[in-house]
Amino acid sequence: MREIFFDEDTIYAPITPNVHSAVSIIRVSGEKSIESVDKIFRGKKKLKDAKTHSILYGYIVDEKEEKIDDVLVSVMRKPNSYTAEDVVEINCHGNPLIVTKILELLKNQNLRMALPGEFTKRAVLNGKIDLIQAEAVNSLIMSKNLTNLKISRNILNGNLSKIVNEIKEKLLDLLAYLEVLVDHPEEDLAERNWEFIENSIKNVIKKLKNILDKSKNSRFFTEGIKICIVGKTNSGKSSLMNSMLGEDRSIVSKIPGTTRDVVKEITSIEGVPVSILDTAGIRKSKNLLEKEGIKRTINSIKSSDVILLVFDISTKISKKDVSVIETIKNHAKEKNIFVVLNKIDKLTKKPIKNLDTFNIEKNKKILKRKDDILNLLKENNITPTEYFIVSAKKGIGIKKLTKTIVEKIIGDVETEVNNILTNNERHKELIQDTIKSLEEALEATKQKMPEEFIAINVRDSLSYIGEMIGEVTTEDLMDKIFKNFCVGK
Amino acid sequence: MREIFFDEDTIYAPITPNVHSAVSIIRVSGEKSIESVDKIFRGKKKLKDAKTHSILYGYIVDEKEEKIDDVLVSVMRKPNSYTAEDVVEINCHGNPLIVTKILELLKNQNLRMALPGEFTKRAVLNGKIDLIQAEAVNSLIMSKNLTNLKISRNILNGNLSKIVNEIKEKLLDLLAYLEVLVDHPEEDLAERNWEFIENSIKNVIKKLKNILDKSKNSRFFTEGIKICIVGKTNSGKSSLMNSMLGEDRSIVSKIPGTTRDVVKEITSIEGVPVSILDTAGIRKSKNLLEKEGIKRTINSIKSSDVILLVFDISTKISKKDVSVIETIKNHAKEKNIFVVLNKIDKLTKKPIKNLDTFNIEKNKKILKRKDDILNLLKENNITPTEYFIVSAKKGIGIKKLTKTIVEKIIGDVETEVNNILTNNERHKELIQDTIKSLEEALEATKQKMPEEFIAINVRDSLSYIGEMIGEVTTEDLMDKIFKNFCVGK
Repeated sequence: MREIFFDEDTIYAPITPNVHSAVSIIRVSGEKSIESVDKIFRGKKKLKDAKTHSILYGYIVDEKEEKIDDVLVSVMRKPNSYTAEDVVEINCHGNPLIVTKILELLKNQNLRMALPGEFTKRAVLNGKIDLIQAEAVNSLIMSKNLTNLKISRNILNGNLSKIVNEIKEKLLDLLAYLEVLVDHPEEDLAERNWEFIENSIKNVIKKLKNILDKSKNSRFFTEGIKICIVGKTNSGKSSLMNSMLGEDRSIVSKIPGTTRDVVKEITSIEGVPVSILDTAGIRKSKNLLEKEGIKRTINSIKSSDVILLVFDISTKISKKDVSVIETIKNHAKEKNIFVVLNKIDKLTKKPIKNLDTFNIEKNKKILKRKDDILNLLKENNITPTEYFIVSAKKGIGIKKLTKTIVEKIIGDVETEVNNILTNNERHKELIQDTIKSLEEALEATKQKMPEEFIAINVRDSLSYIGEMIGEVTTEDLMDKIFKNFCVGK
Repeated sequence: MREIFFDEDTIYAPITPNVHSAVSIIRVSGEKSIESVDKIFRGKKKLKDAKTHSILYGYIVDEKEEKIDDVLVSVMRKPNSYTAEDVVEINCHGNPLIVTKILELLKNQNLRMALPGEFTKRAVLNGKIDLIQAEAVNSLIMSKNLTNLKISRNILNGNLSKIVNEIKEKLLDLLAYLEVLVDHPEEDLAERNWEFIENSIKNVIKKLKNILDKSKNSRFFTEGIKICIVGKTNSGKSSLMNSMLGEDRSIVSKIPGTTRDVVKEITSIEGVPVSILDTAGIRKSKNLLEKEGIKRTINSIKSSDVILLVFDISTKISKKDVSVIETIKNHAKEKNIFVVLNKIDKLTKKPIKNLDTFNIEKNKKILKRKDDILNLLKENNITPTEYFIVSAKKGIGIKKLTKTIVEKIIGDVETEVNNILTNNERHKELIQDTIKSLEEALEATKQKMPEEFIAINVRDSLSYIGEMIGEVTTEDLMDKIFKNFCVGK
């Protein structure tokens, strides 16, 4: 089924960053890797005489037999190497001039520089790993947080591949059964086991939907939870952002409207990546720049997972607060809205150290203002997920706020991370395509249509599964997947 | 003699840059390296059962036996490793989160993160290489140009070490002879072979001076040739600089005095690093900023190897030109001054394509102006090394200029690079100290002073040699040398 033919070229690339450092490594893979490196390597013995998975010490020399560098060379013979081809790795001093020189010596032997991801692509073509795992290799390397790293690790371990391959086997069994029926149309239709066909399809659809269901939150671990801070000018939005980030990132200022544009900062809460957007304060304005700011704020709200609606509880509700609510109310539906009642420190005489032990019931003013705000929201048909009393400036109540955000959006992080079967949009789309084909097969089964109709849909679904694991691929698809890999992988 | 004791700690460090990349490597060295990595490695066999210089495939796991990454682990047993200790290298996916996690697992076993250069320091302490070679390792990694790389390579190959060790042997022979004489004062003084002593010392001094002599140009390959461009405003200094650099680096402008401060650019000519200083145009000025500029220009002249004195040959000598010459004449003595007669393109009707085929003898104006300028310089006691007619703007004559600079300063680059025995100031200073002690020994010999006096000086000289190769060292000296190494080396 595969449209790609094995590439005979022997390829090479640095697999470590090409900067001044202790060590750099150049990988060579393919039929000619051992004989080519042997031509520029001088050691006690030849690489061709070396056992697989052994390391030789020696020198790389140029055409004039001049020593370029002393190196350790690793030999890993096929099929027990990363690419399943003969692989040689040259471990030299980490100087880009040395690496460049060695690459040149390899090029002079008509070897070719590997494209990004080409080593991994060969691992797929040679059946070392499937395409699902290959994509996980890149995701593993590029992961910027521990949760996504764990998810990628699980995929690379083969968790998803195992399930998908089981599904493939089930579908192949079903297809074999259907094809027998197609080949023997003379048999009595009543003899067909319609129940077996229907149950087989339903079962696979269930398994596929389960993958999607378990993986629906994966976006939060790759892109992060998007939090948008909204509120009138001077309600303490920037302070809240900084407090959540743990450092003074954006300038906290007393001049209203300091954050004219949207400020974006990335942090992590409980190991989950979070991007926080600090929006411009909303107020009615004829100022063009501010109007643009409001437009951007609304866009930020629309694309957010969580809206933090900030009020200054140390003052009464103002026209500006009302204006903010009116501006956002049509855009905040079906969003998680956390109301943040800020500047609590200004309402108490004694400094609050811990909100858990502070009894707000005793503070009539706080209670009154809290109720006023919640009522105002109710009047505007805004239903907050929860409310929080905080002091962004003093850092009071912030930890509880951030923890609750993660709990509400994700639930238990560790459980969720272990549940997720894929963090890859391509997989999700192909699973959806597979489900769609199988639902058509199911419909045909229910209507007891000729087996050929059912078989066509099952074959389609198998083709999507094949595309997922890399059995059915095109050069275009492979190029698209591997071009995002880093050089040397 | 060595004051340092062997450090029993097992140490670890990443030996590749800790960034997202195909592969990262963590090196572990010391007594416990194999048993420690065995605790976190799961493969077909244990590292303790692996042969030296073999590679095992497996997983790194955490305390809960959870897979952190799949890895290739290299085992290199003492003494055949970089440090001459048991060395294990863990080759994992290039994600800083993975590397950090593995480092943490090693730390949890009471291993210690290696200091910069600590692996190489151990190689010295364990006698794998001497201190001269260790310093060449760092120089090799840090070299920014091929010439210095070659010099470092030659030192690492042991070229200098061999000569220094021969000198050491000669001095030890001499010292042994002197000590026999000291121990047997009863022998007749006339029996002493004064000629042997004198010749031995003279011979060693000659060898040492030869090292310094051959290496005197090494500075040009590390720091580069320092070229300073001087001339009146609008004489085309910036254009000349850009033309030499091959690109438009500094803004070329028609407003006089654009380059108010000193602009420094690094390039390479014939493989030799060159730093070019484009100085502020000199003109008499009450402007404080410009006065500061002139001061800096004079400082640049003082620290330069070559001064390019630029004149606009398309106009007559102006007061400004005279002012430039008067300003620099006291600072330009004993400097290589190359007179650059610029803007030749403005003096010819037909465009010049090649100066070699252009006959300036036919152009009376050019000849006249050239002579005027050279006469003016003569009047001011400035003797130029050579003069060049160029058009910086059109790039005419520039290649000849740069080539001549390298030839005059260095001579034949390849010969020179192969001649140089050290690029290290510490070596040069120690060689000078050694020579000084030996010259005192020589003086004592000539005066036929008691052998003990001669022996003291020879012992001193041996101590300097020992410091050079790392046999006589202090913790302070070692720290100073290795702290500039990169992590993981």
